[in-house]
Amino acid sequence: MRPIRTGILGATGAVGQRFIQLLASNPWFQITALAASDRSVGAPYEKACTWRLPGDCPASVRELIVQPCEPGLDCEIVFSALPSSVAGPIEERMAAAGYGVLSNASSHRMDADVPLLIPEVNPDHLQLIPIQRANRGWDKGFIVTDPNCSTAGLTVALKPLHEAFGVRRVVVTTMQALSGAGYPGVPALDSLDNVIPYISEEEEKMAREPRKLLGTFSREAGSIVPADIAISPSCNRVATRDGHLEAVSVELGRKASREEVIAALRGFQSLPFRLGCPSAVEPTIIVRDEPDRPQTFLDRDAGRGMAITVGRVRPCEVLDFKFVVLSHNTIRGAAGGAILNAELMIAQGMIA
Amino acid sequence: MRPIRTGILGATGAVGQRFIQLLASNPWFQITALAASDRSVGAPYEKACTWRLPGDCPASVRELIVQPCEPGLDCEIVFSALPSSVAGPIEERMAAAGYGVLSNASSHRMDADVPLLIPEVNPDHLQLIPIQRANRGWDKGFIVTDPNCSTAGLTVALKPLHEAFGVRRVVVTTMQALSGAGYPGVPALDSLDNVIPYISEEEEKMAREPRKLLGTFSREAGSIVPADIAISPSCNRVATRDGHLEAVSVELGRKASREEVIAALRGFQSLPFRLGCPSAVEPTIIVRDEPDRPQTFLDRDAGRGMAITVGRVRPCEVLDFKFVVLSHNTIRGAAGGAILNAELMIAQGMIA
Amino acid sequence: MRPIRTGILGATGAVGQRFIQLLASNPWFQITALAASDRSVGAPYEKACTWRLPGDCPASVRELIVQPCEPGLDCEIVFSALPSSVAGPIEERMAAAGYGVLSNASSHRMDADVPLLIPEVNPDHLQLIPIQRANRGWDKGFIVTDPNCSTAGLTVALKPLHEAFGVRRVVVTTMQALSGAGYPGVPALDSLDNVIPYISEEEEKMAREPRKLLGTFSREAGSIVPADIAISPSCNRVATRDGHLEAVSVELGRKASREEVIAALRGFQSLPFRLGCPSAVEPTIIVRDEPDRPQTFLDRDAGRGMAITVGRVRPCEVLDFKFVVLSHNTIRGAAGGAILNAELMIAQGMIA
Amino acid sequence: MRPIRTGILGATGAVGQRFIQLLASNPWFQITALAASDRSVGAPYEKACTWRLPGDCPASVRELIVQPCEPGLDCEIVFSALPSSVAGPIEERMAAAGYGVLSNASSHRMDADVPLLIPEVNPDHLQLIPIQRANRGWDKGFIVTDPNCSTAGLTVALKPLHEAFGVRRVVVTTMQALSGAGYPGVPALDSLDNVIPYISEEEEKMAREPRKLLGTFSREAGSIVPADIAISPSCNRVATRDGHLEAVSVELGRKASREEVIAALRGFQSLPFRLGCPSAVEPTIIVRDEPDRPQTFLDRDAGRGMAITVGRVRPCEVLDFKFVVLSHNTIRGAAGGAILNAELMIAQGMIA
Repeated sequence: MRPIRTGILGATGAVGQRFIQLLASNPWFQITALAASDRSVGAPYEKACTWRLPGDCPASVRELIVQPCEPGLDCEIVFSALPSSVAGPIEERMAAAGYGVLSNASSHRMDADVPLLIPEVNPDHLQLIPIQRANRGWDKGFIVTDPNCSTAGLTVALKPLHEAFGVRRVVVTTMQALSGAGYPGVPALDSLDNVIPYISEEEEKMAREPRKLLGTFSREAGSIVPADIAISPSCNRVATRDGHLEAVSVELGRKASREEVIAALRGFQSLPFRLGCPSAVEPTIIVRDEPDRPQTFLDRDAGRGMAITVGRVRPCEVLDFKFVVLSHNTIRGAAGGAILNAELMIAQGMIA
Repeated sequence: MRPIRTGILGATGAVGQRFIQLLASNPWFQITALAASDRSVGAPYEKACTWRLPGDCPASVRELIVQPCEPGLDCEIVFSALPSSVAGPIEERMAAAGYGVLSNASSHRMDADVPLLIPEVNPDHLQLIPIQRANRGWDKGFIVTDPNCSTAGLTVALKPLHEAFGVRRVVVTTMQALSGAGYPGVPALDSLDNVIPYISEEEEKMAREPRKLLGTFSREAGSIVPADIAISPSCNRVATRDGHLEAVSVELGRKASREEVIAALRGFQSLPFRLGCPSAVEPTIIVRDEPDRPQTFLDRDAGRGMAITVGRVRPCEVLDFKFVVLSHNTIRGAAGGAILNAELMIAQGMIA
Repeated sequence: MRPIRTGILGATGAVGQRFIQLLASNPWFQITALAASDRSVGAPYEKACTWRLPGDCPASVRELIVQPCEPGLDCEIVFSALPSSVAGPIEERMAAAGYGVLSNASSHRMDADVPLLIPEVNPDHLQLIPIQRANRGWDKGFIVTDPNCSTAGLTVALKPLHEAFGVRRVVVTTMQALSGAGYPGVPALDSLDNVIPYISEEEEKMAREPRKLLGTFSREAGSIVPADIAISPSCNRVATRDGHLEAVSVELGRKASREEVIAALRGFQSLPFRLGCPSAVEPTIIVRDEPDRPQTFLDRDAGRGMAITVGRVRPCEVLDFKFVVLSHNTIRGAAGGAILNAELMIAQGMIA
Repeated sequence: MRPIRTGILGATGAVGQRFIQLLASNPWFQITALAASDRSVGAPYEKACTWRLPGDCPASVRELIVQPCEPGLDCEIVFSALPSSVAGPIEERMAAAGYGVLSNASSHRMDADVPLLIPEVNPDHLQLIPIQRANRGWDKGFIVTDPNCSTAGLTVALKPLHEAFGVRRVVVTTMQALSGAGYPGVPALDSLDNVIPYISEEEEKMAREPRKLLGTFSREAGSIVPADIAISPSCNRVATRDGHLEAVSVELGRKASREEVIAALRGFQSLPFRLGCPSAVEPTIIVRDEPDRPQTFLDRDAGRGMAITVGRVRPCEVLDFKFVVLSHNTIRGAAGGAILNAELMIAQGMIA
């Protein structure tokens, strides 16, 4: 198989850099185009960008000339790391021009005909693609989105519980990492020796996105019927670099024992792993038995940042069970998730 | 009024130092005795102790000779900053010998005849004192305890809601400061760039202590009938020095509007403030309107560390309301709380 | 004495807030005017400013309407917390219009006729004021500057050594706090688990400013003859909130014993303290004997942030002696220093 | 080549874990024995040890039974991660019993007949081994030590400068990571928002160890003639996990331009790399041109933690040049350094 010619929109930002870092060693993709805002256009990537990940910028992209974020890029698909404030229309123009758009922005996540996708959770939602193309008069372009970074880990953990027992109500408190705010993001003076109990728009996303992700594709409606789950999030920013830790309480549709809950989590199977997708890992859900795990620093890189780690599964005094879930916000919850979306589409023949 | 002659058990530890710092400028008390473990006995306090709070150890105690933790101390009351592993029998011996014991240890908190006291919340629980003395054959000694540091702030916030609307169920996730673990406490390698989602015994305390604090004194039973509230805590250690931040969801016994909830919190009155206790503040509950407050660093010292700050009062998608509460764990939640307990007893003539 | 009517230029920024916090409780000043950039002009201060210091913005300034940074302010003196990029011409216009300008900006520090002032170090440099007025045709206005935050602590420590033994060469490595970069300043992602070994322009300032501060007023030249000291600074940003810690090695003009060095430091006298300036403290230089002090967190607030703390005085294997010095960068090294400059001028009758 | 059968003394501690992590993927070694203090003896490693590095303990050692630290271990060489308080006599007993001892402890570093070794710096010092054996009546056992973690990076940087220009005097201030203190090590309360300007015994080691490392083997004396360099260290603990950053000023024996200094650093050649040692990297010294590099977080893992990074090479106002050097303290400065010592000896046929 020849690698897919790939572009990145918003290539100079924090998520853009993570895309480059992950794609540079991924055999299914070849980075052939980098695009960013006007300020960077025309410069070689290594000049346009201050590389902020450990190590150096991959040699293969250093001399690529940064292009504008518009059709004309030399690639088949684009990963969009654009800020939501500008992503919407740009992504539409790209898809209309025939590019496959794998977006990390929130702009189109809740569009009725756009898949909000986690390959291990709702691969069947890709059935929206032909509907999307018909609706919008697009030929071979498309838009597929991945969820918010705080949604991703939670939803993966809820999926096997929802399948096995039905999830009815969820109270979740997040302790989210600094990288979720991008760069420059949170000022150090606001982070050191502090917790900020608020992240703009985050709770709204966490309340609605898992409902779509865990929802059902309706051929008649041509859209997703959201799962009937009430979710109450409280989102907090803490002084960690990467890794969103979440304390979760769930009410289940039918009674289950702690052993059954753990067995459901441990039994979770990954379709993209079975299909050989290079970014997929098995297990996708790691369940730890120690009383004090997962910890952000120790567990965020499990499964190369694509696994989520669940721990402290125990009865809840108010709902049914509570547990802790950790996922890597810029890998599983952003760049890595979008790349896995593309891999699933490649494995299923939806990207040539 | 002459100041009360006061001793401190466990004077060299982190909470002991906080007691000394707070008492040194409190007109109602005079520190006349310091006691600690064998290792320190016989040395002047300034030699026995490595002072770990900013500034220097108060001059008034530097030359006090450290005594053993047993009767014979030159004082009327003692504040106990002993670790729970040893506090139980020592505190009983002190009370039996006639000392008033104001304890910060968990050993006796749940004893049926021992008040677990927050002066603004349940001052009437001091009615247990004569019962305690009768039960135990004590003459003028007594034991009064303050709650766990994570319980204190939560319970103060719940009190006016419970009075106004009835609180039925509570889901609470804490983000607790390092000082709660004492010294040396949490290793820096476990704290930097990390969250630890577990604190030994903490969730058990948070689940039961507010029920006693919000419970009702029963003259017939000679004990406290706990409030019928289900509490589900998830306790986490984050990289902050002082200040426990908690994300709280509550279910109320009767429906209330957001305005009513805020009015109940803002209307909370402090009995010890009315009685002129020097450590009491008004308001005890500060309600902030900004979307991103309270923050640990900015708000923990409000009301000299004796106020609690509530923010983000909003509807909960699962229970009725959710909000954030912050309290200073080593002042309101430990030394300051125990001192206020003593002040209430002085103001009510229970300590001569 | 009636308090001096006082304005603040750049009142909404980090240093501006520190000025307000310190002046609000200072009996010699009354804040009567706040000025900031166009964006804030016309709004009450509490709306124009997001207050970022613990506690609330002082009530006395909340309703002051923010003015533009130009003549017309209702005050006699102004403290300038302006960024250096704009401070220069604004401060000149204010002084020309008759205001006394106490500046924290670097713009005029090295001007030949502008005092760069630390009241305990070089109060006689105020003799430049009449020369400044004559040079510039100013009537009663003036500009007096305080040094860079990393310079202040070092220079206070060097002063008694220079007087007693002559200081010839200094190698100094700083570990500077985040607040020195203002707000938003350093991104948290650049600060957590990191040291940045570079602060723009900082080493240049540290190499030249102490030479002027320790220099001699020459009546003939009408300027300061700089001290003949070679200073080699290496400036680093570490993850602390406030407090610049500096490792210093010095070569002295004549041999001295460790005891003599310590005695010189301990014997340092504060002129502004003797004159009763409210911000002055005694001792200005605290010398600690413990092997591991000063520490940033424990000692930065010594003397209400106006003292500096010296520790670890010991022989240097390469120069003569080495030691550690700590000073509070936004109090001693910025707002507090500028306020003390004004107090000295008031005490000496130079501000009416 | 068959892998060398390898044991680890002090296997459960922080450095011991790092040895296991690095050796598990090193083709030249096979871990066949783990030894630790009495408390752990007899338990399988995974029970005896709380693994504190990200990821899980390597599967290959989990079931090894922990042995006592004494002869009888099933291996040819041992890496010693013992604390210096106990390492001395244990290492001697092991060597006397025929084991090759590669030590990370300070106990024998300054022994006249023990090589203090950095393979890229002073491989010829291995000529001490036959002398050591003769002196001590040892047959095939030996002790080879690696330097203190703060010494390692500095000395690698000094080596090419000393060869090219002669280094005469060095003033160095360190900003050292938490992991250098082992586990539990520094309490979080001492680290958060703080710098500790003192590390016990560290400055003494930094002042003397580079002199031996850069010294000359004297066949007549049967020992190392130390280099004639005066070194003045100031050691500080900052809130970073790994990576010691050092601000260095050097005086050279002959004048050199900045370009010559950089060329000397860039031209540094690694003997162990040429010999194919798996832990060796090229370049060993990375020189960066950006004004703000190396940074601890961004550069500590360069060359898999075995390279050192130098930046900000510039003239010094007091000595000749100054620069910043960063090295990974638990890889280059501890476990990785000791492993490279063993690799060099294998490559040179000194370990069979």
